[in-house]
Amino acid sequence: MSGRLIGVGTGPGDPELLTLKAVRALAAADVVAHFAKEGRAGNARRTVEGFLRADAVELPLCYPVTTEIAAGAPAYGAAIAGFYAAATAAVEAHLAAGRTVAVLSEGDPLFYGSYMHLHVRLAPRWPAEVIPGVTAMSGCWSQAGLPLAQGDDVLTVLPGTLPEAELARRLADSAASVIMKVGRNLPAIRRALIAAGKLGRAVYVERGTMERTLTVPLAGKADDAAPYFSLVLVPGWEGRP
Amino acid sequence: MSGRLIGVGTGPGDPELLTLKAVRALAAADVVAHFAKEGRAGNARRTVEGFLRADAVELPLCYPVTTEIAAGAPAYGAAIAGFYAAATAAVEAHLAAGRTVAVLSEGDPLFYGSYMHLHVRLAPRWPAEVIPGVTAMSGCWSQAGLPLAQGDDVLTVLPGTLPEAELARRLADSAASVIMKVGRNLPAIRRALIAAGKLGRAVYVERGTMERTLTVPLAGKADDAAPYFSLVLVPGWEGRP
Repeated sequence: MSGRLIGVGTGPGDPELLTLKAVRALAAADVVAHFAKEGRAGNARRTVEGFLRADAVELPLCYPVTTEIAAGAPAYGAAIAGFYAAATAAVEAHLAAGRTVAVLSEGDPLFYGSYMHLHVRLAPRWPAEVIPGVTAMSGCWSQAGLPLAQGDDVLTVLPGTLPEAELARRLADSAASVIMKVGRNLPAIRRALIAAGKLGRAVYVERGTMERTLTVPLAGKADDAAPYFSLVLVPGWEGRP
Repeated sequence: MSGRLIGVGTGPGDPELLTLKAVRALAAADVVAHFAKEGRAGNARRTVEGFLRADAVELPLCYPVTTEIAAGAPAYGAAIAGFYAAATAAVEAHLAAGRTVAVLSEGDPLFYGSYMHLHVRLAPRWPAEVIPGVTAMSGCWSQAGLPLAQGDDVLTVLPGTLPEAELARRLADSAASVIMKVGRNLPAIRRALIAAGKLGRAVYVERGTMERTLTVPLAGKADDAAPYFSLVLVPGWEGRP
């Protein structure tokens, strides 16, 4: 019996947004791996509560750092590289024992997901399958009832970590945009939207599809506090009826 | 009892990629509306086969034109505007009778979906909910096992209908890209990828997650035939291990 790797997209947070395929994969998995911050269940793990086998082995993969060190710093790169090597080894030990390992991924596994780091290391050596998921951005614009892009709109997905001038340039050059990694970057994102003439169209969504979610026009949000699970949506379809 | 509108994302084509929430909404819907070409069941309708109530009323909304008239032509605009007005009226008659109407949408309803045209007309007047779905692009890159974007990558979604020079400029300016509406635009898309120096990274996916699907490096695809359900993926994450 050969080990099998499955990247499972768990969607934006609401367990009802799991796919049938994800539910079946979770019910069949011998081992369920999930990325998390030390001592805290990640969002993907919370989403699948109640969908795992009673005898499934849980394998938390705990980031050594998240935002304590700047992502560009050499110490960050070294810590993260060592972490992915160790996580790969931990998963591979189960694969070598013939087990099916489901690796949880918030949203969609191959769309900015941590699972990608395991996939590129293990998929060349083991049977691997990726189950796509509903992205966080889809969850957010659906909850907001905000048509995002239509017809010949260009849609750009922008990390909020980009330099402010580049953010502004790209916002001005796209019919529709989604800004991820908002958090501490919200003041710069707000200024970039103003520079691009798009603040009035921007919608801020916090914890989309989860409990205690919030949707407000960004121009009406008085403070610049934003948790990790927040996005800014700039809809296109300017000629909508 | 008040009528209720639900936009239901049916995902990329594989019925297993329906969400639990979509399945429950379909099982509860009095009326199931779906966009289609005259005389042909659309892909969304095929995806939900077996998930509808036996007594559900089906409401096909048949496009008067698809590709017979150029999208920019005045005759196209007039035909399409009349179509959406008639489709809105047909759905609204059921809402006024107190029925729950599920409108099927391939992929995700508010991401380039026809459902958006009904949503903007009806959501101001009726209780409306949107159930997000797995997008076609997620289905395609998952099937290809192709990590699409990571870290600070900018991802651009491009309609293949854009002018060739604009396509090339935007491809060169983005770490990762997805080109939709491939079909007859494939020769121009290929030339734009060459101009942007990205043909070697491009992957062509036809009918992702459906039967008779095909995934090939675009550079190795000998012909320029491409059906409507095809995409070109240009992955980012250039520094991947």
